[in-house]
Amino acid sequence: MYDLVIVGAGSGGYEGALYAHRRGMKVALVELSPETVGGNCLNRGCIPSKYMRHGAYLIDKFAKLKDYGVELKGYEVHMAPLKAGRDRVVFTIRENFKKFAQQIGIPIYYGKGVLKDSHTVEVQPSGELLRAKFILIATGSSTMSIGSLVPDGKYIYDTDQIWSLEDFPRRLLIVGGGAVGVEFAYIFRMYGSEVVLVELKDRLLPSPDIPEESSRYLARKLKRLGVDIRLRTTVESWERKSSGVRARLSDGSEVEVDFILLGVGRKPNTEGIGLEEVGVELEERGFVKVNEHCQTSIPNIYACGDITSPLMLAHKSMYEARVAINHMLGEGHMKRDERIVPKVIYSAYEVASVGLTEDQAEEEGYEYKVGVVSFVPNPKAMDDGENEGFVRLVVSEEGELLGCHILGPHAGELIHQVVHLMKAGLKADFLSTSMYSHPSLSEVIVQAGMEVHFGPITWAKRH
Amino acid sequence: MYDLVIVGAGSGGYEGALYAHRRGMKVALVELSPETVGGNCLNRGCIPSKYMRHGAYLIDKFAKLKDYGVELKGYEVHMAPLKAGRDRVVFTIRENFKKFAQQIGIPIYYGKGVLKDSHTVEVQPSGELLRAKFILIATGSSTMSIGSLVPDGKYIYDTDQIWSLEDFPRRLLIVGGGAVGVEFAYIFRMYGSEVVLVELKDRLLPSPDIPEESSRYLARKLKRLGVDIRLRTTVESWERKSSGVRARLSDGSEVEVDFILLGVGRKPNTEGIGLEEVGVELEERGFVKVNEHCQTSIPNIYACGDITSPLMLAHKSMYEARVAINHMLGEGHMKRDERIVPKVIYSAYEVASVGLTEDQAEEEGYEYKVGVVSFVPNPKAMDDGENEGFVRLVVSEEGELLGCHILGPHAGELIHQVVHLMKAGLKADFLSTSMYSHPSLSEVIVQAGMEVHFGPITWAKRH
Repeated sequence: MYDLVIVGAGSGGYEGALYAHRRGMKVALVELSPETVGGNCLNRGCIPSKYMRHGAYLIDKFAKLKDYGVELKGYEVHMAPLKAGRDRVVFTIRENFKKFAQQIGIPIYYGKGVLKDSHTVEVQPSGELLRAKFILIATGSSTMSIGSLVPDGKYIYDTDQIWSLEDFPRRLLIVGGGAVGVEFAYIFRMYGSEVVLVELKDRLLPSPDIPEESSRYLARKLKRLGVDIRLRTTVESWERKSSGVRARLSDGSEVEVDFILLGVGRKPNTEGIGLEEVGVELEERGFVKVNEHCQTSIPNIYACGDITSPLMLAHKSMYEARVAINHMLGEGHMKRDERIVPKVIYSAYEVASVGLTEDQAEEEGYEYKVGVVSFVPNPKAMDDGENEGFVRLVVSEEGELLGCHILGPHAGELIHQVVHLMKAGLKADFLSTSMYSHPSLSEVIVQAGMEVHFGPITWAKRH
Repeated sequence: MYDLVIVGAGSGGYEGALYAHRRGMKVALVELSPETVGGNCLNRGCIPSKYMRHGAYLIDKFAKLKDYGVELKGYEVHMAPLKAGRDRVVFTIRENFKKFAQQIGIPIYYGKGVLKDSHTVEVQPSGELLRAKFILIATGSSTMSIGSLVPDGKYIYDTDQIWSLEDFPRRLLIVGGGAVGVEFAYIFRMYGSEVVLVELKDRLLPSPDIPEESSRYLARKLKRLGVDIRLRTTVESWERKSSGVRARLSDGSEVEVDFILLGVGRKPNTEGIGLEEVGVELEERGFVKVNEHCQTSIPNIYACGDITSPLMLAHKSMYEARVAINHMLGEGHMKRDERIVPKVIYSAYEVASVGLTEDQAEEEGYEYKVGVVSFVPNPKAMDDGENEGFVRLVVSEEGELLGCHILGPHAGELIHQVVHLMKAGLKADFLSTSMYSHPSLSEVIVQAGMEVHFGPITWAKRH
């Protein structure tokens, strides 16, 4: 009898297992195979893509080297060492986790975990039955295809298959201008591929959580780097050619590419694991219904991550796992809260958002103010040759931090300053009085706090 | 009659002028010359050195390129474009500030500002008298020489003179293993110079505010890069040679170098500006005595920055300027607080500290706990090929955040997460429940919070 059995050893599952162990629970994990420990994020998602993105970023920086007195004699790119380095990172993290779980006594059962009743998980096909006081479902999500664009790993790749690529494409078509699309567009472009990026909507990163300014800045830089961006455009049909694919786009044009990469969303893995059979209620779109403690309709069964909402981010799952475990332990101080989930995209810029955009604040009926400070005059950003971008801080009339949107250098780390303050319920006036080191990129955040608290510096305000 | 006259347009002075203007005060600046606006930090300190350090960092990263599938054909370094790029950043910031001050109506009087009485500053040599309700002294600090090591800009450089260098030295001797010394050692080494670095004390960065671990890590990497570090060593004598300098060190050895660079501390600029004449009290070492509101012994005269304490950091001055101005406006909510001043060093690693080290916590009689988390297994750090370093979080028995010490990637930005939380009085349990994006470097900070709040994950803790 375990205190907790977790179905799925992805980000939420393994973070949850470590946290439950830390809190004194007897915990076990169920995961499909030794090769899938770590889930999508580790094996086919954020970890390998961030590795390749870092390589792309380093190549991107070459253009600045002359300003630092460094004259390059030229360079060549090769997929094999990039792939090897990337796969080594993934392998190391995965094996370290398994080794550590074994050392501290967290068993991992390999197979498909299926609920038999509210206290029993069956591991298939072995048939082993795991009994537990609590169960946490953390089964993640799967890639989707659209229409005739069915991934085959040859003409059409999805984000499960792209990792097997043995060479950089001469030319590729990316379908979907969301996080996956803009990330791979940058990666392949910097490694020398010609990239066509099509997006159905009228902007890149077409999420209501991300302000249009971020989309515009990113599109401008990707274009400058040579990415062929087609908005309001879809793939109408495609056909195999001797050396790749010919696709007809809705704008009437045709493109010939080595292959098509799909980045078009994911669906929750909630089928065939006994959820409905034991009475766990699902929403229409297949997500598990959970309350603010990540509890499902069956009180001792919890769910976290990609199966609880369309906000499919590894850290949302990791956070929800901790929320669920705290509640199992009788503590309710951490709650599910999608407003404080940072959304970070690593493309030609780092793009980070937390909380409400201005549009969302307006829709929710807030009287709001915005503090906008550019990275352009920031001394550290100038020193680093990366002074493009902005911080937009959205604040209610009462000074409540409603949201923050950063595009620019290290946005993915800087955003956490605001995440912490939002979670702590601190207001803009706090940010306007805080300390920052000089020169630092962080100055821009404190300046945005001052901007919104005191108003901008203008001649008009003076006497 | 001005509301406020600020003597010195360095970091504290110009930040103070903008802040005072923002808060509705009629403010004027006095600065030696148009070329010194921005002070030491901008013209001869952190801004130009961070520029060169970024170039060094980019060269340092070349060693990792092969792991990202990038094969360099070689490179050459040239001082002229490095110097031009660096000077362009400094010039741009300085001119932008002057232009902006003019646009919004902040006059800058050029000359030496000398107090005539508690409400009057004389600009010398013009003799113009500026009357003000409040005066803020922000005159900064100057380089020092030691013994026979007197800077001449040919055989011996200090940090006022090093910027005129027209070429990289073949070999140089740096005296002082503090922030200046370790920064230039890294810069010159990466640009190809042979570097000997001598430090009187038994470690680099020999400040009680910086933990020994940071010194050790940094020394290890600098050595790996080929810097010849000599601890417990001084320069006993030196002589001119046909092509540079021969120096005899206290370890008995001799080194022949192109020149010597001094990085051995600074003294406050408090002489000859009328402080004592109008009754502003000084401490023994020449610092201005100020209270927690940065008020001197003359109630309407305030002081900020390098002249208030040996913690000579631009952002301490900028913060103190705001503290002083708030107090002039009858607001006392911001106070001088050296504990929340982040100290950031940019060398072969970024090294950042805020608050107490473990040794200091012990000296102050705290029962304390430490959460130590390494960057080694951090997925984002692994992706970026920069997973060396640590976060050390020092926390009282009651959970108070006493200090944080980060060595590793982007430490200079990451530290602000803890600066904000310390300032807000939040505790380690808050940090243990906050959200972070995955993968991010920031995870290490939240993990350090968990480590210190729940204790480390070990087999022993389990049941």
